[in-house]
Amino acid sequence: MLPYIAEFIGTMLLILLGDGVVANVNLNKSGMKGGGSVQITLAWGLAVLIPAYIFGVASGASFNPALTLALAVDGSFAWSMVPGYLVAQFAGAFVGAILVYILFKGQFDATEDQKTKLGVFCTSPSIPNLTLNILSEAIGTFVLVFAIKGLANVPDIASGVDKLFVFGIIVSVGMSLGGLTGYAINPARDLGPRLAHTILPIKGKGDSNWGYAIVPLAGPIIGAIAAVLLYGAIPW
Amino acid sequence: MLPYIAEFIGTMLLILLGDGVVANVNLNKSGMKGGGSVQITLAWGLAVLIPAYIFGVASGASFNPALTLALAVDGSFAWSMVPGYLVAQFAGAFVGAILVYILFKGQFDATEDQKTKLGVFCTSPSIPNLTLNILSEAIGTFVLVFAIKGLANVPDIASGVDKLFVFGIIVSVGMSLGGLTGYAINPARDLGPRLAHTILPIKGKGDSNWGYAIVPLAGPIIGAIAAVLLYGAIPW
Amino acid sequence: MLPYIAEFIGTMLLILLGDGVVANVNLNKSGMKGGGSVQITLAWGLAVLIPAYIFGVASGASFNPALTLALAVDGSFAWSMVPGYLVAQFAGAFVGAILVYILFKGQFDATEDQKTKLGVFCTSPSIPNLTLNILSEAIGTFVLVFAIKGLANVPDIASGVDKLFVFGIIVSVGMSLGGLTGYAINPARDLGPRLAHTILPIKGKGDSNWGYAIVPLAGPIIGAIAAVLLYGAIPW
Amino acid sequence: MLPYIAEFIGTMLLILLGDGVVANVNLNKSGMKGGGSVQITLAWGLAVLIPAYIFGVASGASFNPALTLALAVDGSFAWSMVPGYLVAQFAGAFVGAILVYILFKGQFDATEDQKTKLGVFCTSPSIPNLTLNILSEAIGTFVLVFAIKGLANVPDIASGVDKLFVFGIIVSVGMSLGGLTGYAINPARDLGPRLAHTILPIKGKGDSNWGYAIVPLAGPIIGAIAAVLLYGAIPW
Repeated sequence: MLPYIAEFIGTMLLILLGDGVVANVNLNKSGMKGGGSVQITLAWGLAVLIPAYIFGVASGASFNPALTLALAVDGSFAWSMVPGYLVAQFAGAFVGAILVYILFKGQFDATEDQKTKLGVFCTSPSIPNLTLNILSEAIGTFVLVFAIKGLANVPDIASGVDKLFVFGIIVSVGMSLGGLTGYAINPARDLGPRLAHTILPIKGKGDSNWGYAIVPLAGPIIGAIAAVLLYGAIPW
Repeated sequence: MLPYIAEFIGTMLLILLGDGVVANVNLNKSGMKGGGSVQITLAWGLAVLIPAYIFGVASGASFNPALTLALAVDGSFAWSMVPGYLVAQFAGAFVGAILVYILFKGQFDATEDQKTKLGVFCTSPSIPNLTLNILSEAIGTFVLVFAIKGLANVPDIASGVDKLFVFGIIVSVGMSLGGLTGYAINPARDLGPRLAHTILPIKGKGDSNWGYAIVPLAGPIIGAIAAVLLYGAIPW
Repeated sequence: MLPYIAEFIGTMLLILLGDGVVANVNLNKSGMKGGGSVQITLAWGLAVLIPAYIFGVASGASFNPALTLALAVDGSFAWSMVPGYLVAQFAGAFVGAILVYILFKGQFDATEDQKTKLGVFCTSPSIPNLTLNILSEAIGTFVLVFAIKGLANVPDIASGVDKLFVFGIIVSVGMSLGGLTGYAINPARDLGPRLAHTILPIKGKGDSNWGYAIVPLAGPIIGAIAAVLLYGAIPW
Repeated sequence: MLPYIAEFIGTMLLILLGDGVVANVNLNKSGMKGGGSVQITLAWGLAVLIPAYIFGVASGASFNPALTLALAVDGSFAWSMVPGYLVAQFAGAFVGAILVYILFKGQFDATEDQKTKLGVFCTSPSIPNLTLNILSEAIGTFVLVFAIKGLANVPDIASGVDKLFVFGIIVSVGMSLGGLTGYAINPARDLGPRLAHTILPIKGKGDSNWGYAIVPLAGPIIGAIAAVLLYGAIPW
């Protein structure tokens, strides 16, 4: 049971801190409004780092259905545990988003712009283009998963430093490619909070833009599987 | 005697550097005015990192009554030492705030806004709401304490890297949730400097807003105890 | 074959993430437009860190013809492998730049300024001056290569921490000297993408400024060789 | 001879990168003008980190007369080597500043403001006040030296991580207290470049403000010695 609990709490923390920073810098009446993309990208990196080291031993700290699936394709994760992981990840992300809404309720109420409010929960493209958006998510997730696999290439890496590299990977993808589609690079990170946005009684909220949901679902899965396949094809 | 000295000096350093950065970026005539929330949150992380590694062996480097209490509830810290730790922490925070005032006296004199001056010393909510404010402090402290407990989950973590993670935790809570209540997440960090603000002859100062003091007192204690309880309930 | 594959993929990743951040913060309609030089310099550091740890064992993770040449001069890299490395590095940089163009195609189309578009691909001086520009690239690369050689001076450095230092070196050169010539400090990083700019059908693109290409070619090579010579001359 | 060479080259690198970032973000026509205090403080941290790990074994990587003197007072550095170290440090800082001037010559020529040009070389107070300015430098250096001494308190610290902490210390002092006097916290860092400013034929330069030079000389020495005394008085 522990791995599923770990994936649930870990993903909840991930979204609490990750969606949290977006609320923190973008919503009206937040004391840190205007922190900008450096704060957002660093904080998302930390939002992964913290649950990653807490739950690394317990569950492998995936928190990401695309990564979990790719590791199963890769043969380094048991298919039998995939369904439970996916449920835990989506549920954790959903609950995390609800926590962000409760904490920032006053700030949501003070924010008129519907896209800003939706943007706390889930991603959207800066230029809508289904093919390029999926490609963007696929390449971002490719880098993520390829770099995670590559951690094994550092001989005798000091314990804990690998987690610092994971932090670096998340920040890198965000800083370098995040302006394209908001770097979901994780279906649970997008769809769990999107569902929360749909259900929650957010004052003056707009559409949850489910038409876009295929992008943060398909792109990451494609990219993650491509990454493990390429990684496996290299004659290390 | 060493643990109490360590908690006193450590908390003094914490507030010197932590309240220092707020003065440094917010007061008029400071050469770094306008540094913004990235500077504030990174510097608070460093303000914890530095005394944490210096005094980690000497006292456990708590510097935080909520953490100290929670560790006692948890059974990992002796109740008999709690009163002395709390005195040392509040006293250290008080002295640290006085140092910041002395150093930035000219900048305080050049700053008209009373809230800006108070904000160097202690926290205030972006939207006053007793319940949500306490919840915000409780959840921020929950993340802090849960993540500190979780350091034990990294097997054979390289010495020193654990401190880098502590730095990351503080920065994370600040960047992701700090715009709600200014993330005291530590009663001494708020109340010691608030007392200093009350006593010091700050030119044109306003009210010390003691009515809000229950929030950074109760919220962190609730969150810290919840964290050790949940952590203990997980079947690691 | 592995070392050449590693240099090719590694340099491709380097440019995908490095040119990526420039596109991400400078092109119109990017969601992170305006991230500024802190984001650019941190992200370039990560763009080196990630392929460096993935491919460090496989190829030494040079990704830089100037570094490769200097290590050959130094006697710490086989001359027989130099040509293959150089081809792999330039090819990887070229392909990486094409990926950035494809991903940011919509943002390129939305950006009028020709210099901004060229600046995603390759470097240019803030003040054109052949001698000083070459000196700037030489000194930046001197710092890079001297500091890489110096990694050997840290006894028993914890595995992985050396890569964090490499990240620090890249960020340092960028933050401290990057405003002079855009810190190519690597001929492949500049010339591969410059060639991509020449060939790609970028809407409304301007000149590729090949007249400047001698600077990011000669400067880094001079600086890198000077670094290994000085390093070798110190009586460690 | 090696320790003196190491102190000379190390301090030269420190100032090349440290004064470099100030030029890089403050002078007109620099491509990174406007990077702000986050970039300045992070880059100064890296400017210390890089020579520190390169020359740590060779010389102890002091680069700072106040630190060198305090360690001699402390008994952990030989008095007989102090004069040579001090000469090497001031000379290295002087040469480093000349390098910055040569590299940024065009940017200096394009900058009218005399204080901005002087500020690339050396420090100045945001509010002139001899007593408080010396106190500011003393406390900043106290934190620096106390925290360096405290590195010994981390048992079996992983090799290299101690250098990351040194980076953190420099960034911390800068971010939290740097707006007071520009955090020289090192007499060589200020006086070497101030001498360079006096001698160099900088277009339209103003006064070198030698009247202030006592502050970055006396303050750091007082603070550094106080730090080793307090550190020695704690019953560790």
